[in-house]
Amino acid sequence: MIGIIAELKAKPGQGDALLAVMSEAAALVTAHEPGCLFYEVCRSRTDADVIKLFEIYADQAALDAHRTMPHFALIGGKLAPLIAAPPQVETLDAISGSITPPGEGEPVQRTY
Amino acid sequence: MIGIIAELKAKPGQGDALLAVMSEAAALVTAHEPGCLFYEVCRSRTDADVIKLFEIYADQAALDAHRTMPHFALIGGKLAPLIAAPPQVETLDAISGSITPPGEGEPVQRTY
Repeated sequence: MIGIIAELKAKPGQGDALLAVMSEAAALVTAHEPGCLFYEVCRSRTDADVIKLFEIYADQAALDAHRTMPHFALIGGKLAPLIAAPPQVETLDAISGSITPPGEGEPVQRTY
Repeated sequence: MIGIIAELKAKPGQGDALLAVMSEAAALVTAHEPGCLFYEVCRSRTDADVIKLFEIYADQAALDAHRTMPHFALIGGKLAPLIAAPPQVETLDAISGSITPPGEGEPVQRTY
């Protein structure tokens, strides 16, 4: 599996608007991309204009599919006027923990 | 909810050993901490001695509980001889995405 940490830096004072766009992105990704196993939008506690994303994809094909989705372009268009710099994206190998790789064992279940 | 990004840097060549300890940690955390909603162990693709964790907790009480668990001390003892520096921990507000906060809506279900 592939883990992504992405950092988005809003123009000064645009953090709330950026957060709203990325929450819309999260809803679209989780609804339409079965190969995206996890997608969570977080906000810095020290700089309200910084949004960080945690993402996990089943494999490279799922990550490639993510970047060609219609909603990826839609969100990109909304982001462009809000961000101060291109997103910083770090790509990792996701090894173990809460996410069960597709085809291995039972799906993730929460106890809540 | 609270998001954590933690970075652990192994002593040179100790990345595999560090990964094994953190995979053990992931199993213990996900088995014993209902307030930890997500915990995933990732490895850098550019430095095999760097492990990054994504963690999400329901609230501050859940994060406080995490740090007082017997397995937290157990893992800490195994980590100490392997890491090159103290862990770097960033604390964020987790806003929206794959994780449904406890008490809101249905539990997270995977489609796999």
